Amino acid sequence: MALTCRIAVLALSCLFAPPMLVQAQDVTAADAALNAANAKAGPRVTPAKTIPVPTNLGPAAAALIAAPYGQPAWNAVPATPDAWRARVKMLADAALPDLAKAREMLGVTIEPTVIGGVKGFILTPKTIPEAHRNQLIINVHGGGYVDGPGESGTLEAMLMAAYGGYKVIEFDYRMPPDAPYPAAMDDAMAVWKAALAMNDPSRMAIVGSSTGGGMTLAMILRAKAEGLRLPAAIAAGTPWADLTETGDSYKTNEWVDNVLVRYRGYLAEAALLYANGHDLKDPQLSPIYGDFHGFPPTILTTGTRDLFLSNTVRTHRKLRQAGVPAVLQVFEGMSHAQYLFDPAAPETKEAITEIAAFLDQYLAK
Amino acid sequence: MALTCRIAVLALSCLFAPPMLVQAQDVTAADAALNAANAKAGPRVTPAKTIPVPTNLGPAAAALIAAPYGQPAWNAVPATPDAWRARVKMLADAALPDLAKAREMLGVTIEPTVIGGVKGFILTPKTIPEAHRNQLIINVHGGGYVDGPGESGTLEAMLMAAYGGYKVIEFDYRMPPDAPYPAAMDDAMAVWKAALAMNDPSRMAIVGSSTGGGMTLAMILRAKAEGLRLPAAIAAGTPWADLTETGDSYKTNEWVDNVLVRYRGYLAEAALLYANGHDLKDPQLSPIYGDFHGFPPTILTTGTRDLFLSNTVRTHRKLRQAGVPAVLQVFEGMSHAQYLFDPAAPETKEAITEIAAFLDQYLAK
Repeated sequence: MALTCRIAVLALSCLFAPPMLVQAQDVTAADAALNAANAKAGPRVTPAKTIPVPTNLGPAAAALIAAPYGQPAWNAVPATPDAWRARVKMLADAALPDLAKAREMLGVTIEPTVIGGVKGFILTPKTIPEAHRNQLIINVHGGGYVDGPGESGTLEAMLMAAYGGYKVIEFDYRMPPDAPYPAAMDDAMAVWKAALAMNDPSRMAIVGSSTGGGMTLAMILRAKAEGLRLPAAIAAGTPWADLTETGDSYKTNEWVDNVLVRYRGYLAEAALLYANGHDLKDPQLSPIYGDFHGFPPTILTTGTRDLFLSNTVRTHRKLRQAGVPAVLQVFEGMSHAQYLFDPAAPETKEAITEIAAFLDQYLAK
Repeated sequence: MALTCRIAVLALSCLFAPPMLVQAQDVTAADAALNAANAKAGPRVTPAKTIPVPTNLGPAAAALIAAPYGQPAWNAVPATPDAWRARVKMLADAALPDLAKAREMLGVTIEPTVIGGVKGFILTPKTIPEAHRNQLIINVHGGGYVDGPGESGTLEAMLMAAYGGYKVIEFDYRMPPDAPYPAAMDDAMAVWKAALAMNDPSRMAIVGSSTGGGMTLAMILRAKAEGLRLPAAIAAGTPWADLTETGDSYKTNEWVDNVLVRYRGYLAEAALLYANGHDLKDPQLSPIYGDFHGFPPTILTTGTRDLFLSNTVRTHRKLRQAGVPAVLQVFEGMSHAQYLFDPAAPETKEAITEIAAFLDQYLAK
């Protein structure tokens, strides 16, 4: 019999392998142990890895993917409300010079506004294409329900103005530790009601990523519940659709995503801080548990290394199951929301241009 | 200074962390080592993991995801042409009873045919909806360019007939070790030319997964080059778009995907056996290197654990960059082509129904 099993621990796969097969590749003891560990139904056992930076991408994407884990570290969690406030302020202050530089590069202007009693910003591109003159984008910033206050939350709004050619209003919803749930959603709905008084919803979209993506979905759920008119379309980038650690990529992309790294730590603590005792599976906090029937057409964006890959594809599938026109784009090698991180990267322009092209199909002129 | 770093190896992240932060989570020595290893730009260093079976899916999907590594093992590679033939025959023979049972369950009939001089099968559902009566699906089976001969290659064709409601022709292209590249592509083109003589291409689609997805893309490239008319739309499921180990998920999903497991072993050997000395980056072998301008509308399907996740999303992005209407669906937790594996799974019906709904947008009646 030609059966060739180089090491004893491979016995199980030898049992299944037909006798005419031989091992064309050397099998190391480590490989054999992994084969044995995965020879029965159950959890998947995977080894420690060193995952190279992809060689098939441009320098900007490669730099984002190669970047060290984001700081503050995933496990650096403030212990007191004051420590949270200090963290938020530090990150917000650090973002402002880069945002100013990017606006300059992209020809986007920013001015403060108040909408529905909520402070915000109007982002305007150098020129607005004729087809977009009467349209308005409402942007919901991300940041784990704690980060991104004030002007520091205007990254995506700026990109939508620059690469989408839209007038964009970004708003500064209240956040914990000062104002936990439902303050952020109350502000978001006040903004949407004010937007409905400013423009026809057929000419408006709501756009947000990460926490902003989750809030965008929660806004539609609440607008449906309150009988409000809905936007013509929405864009939910890598939405935090599930605040519990449910979804396969919370595990498969754990330690792989260099932005969020893990659920445990900052993310889990931010979820609890925001929820303030509310059930994390309440659809207003985790919109994946809501009813997506009647949602506006939706475009979703994520990356293959995104800790929220599953949040995104679960949202996509659930929208499609509800008959909603919904499309998905997944960027090679990208971690959480990295399609927004480098305003000059071709992938950023591509992601936003795709979102705008999708919105153009559904927004009235 | 309130700086709290519990273990010395965390020094680097302490440098970046503002002093008001403390570690809210215990940091183990292993966590700290990973933080340190990922504190500089470069490859990502990830730990050994035990990845649970997702709890948010139905029993059929959970069973597919929980399943042990596929057999024969990824590293069981035949050493001789006769050993390849024996392996192929063993797997093909094993598939036939399950396919017969599934046809019975789904009400699909099968009959042999010859198209363009190539043997094949016609798969017909119990009833064909009025809108599909004049349409024809050409299916290209998968199997790493070596597996899936004869009736054993009719899984996807059967599902397209059952859940799509189409008449489907699947064909038995020649494969190595007897007939390496370009025999398979020559047969595929002979079939497409014969199909063009049978029906108008506006009423036809080409559909294939894995190797069949890669061949579907290569058929469009070659049809363009030969000036042939193109199908109205195509469906390329988790296409083997790149026969080299290029694409991030070859690494991120290595050992995670329980179907293919790794590039090294069977896959790499099958690629070389098929290529028979040709450059693996020739667009006829790795269509990702071809020009996608002018492609028909395309739907792509994959799963979050798929070793070919990157093959699929790279194809999607490249199609979109070429202005092709192209949509992507990604199934939660699924490994390579598992959306086809269980004919009774709701996810299988969902994947195929989505593909059919996409084709319906573009095929003439």
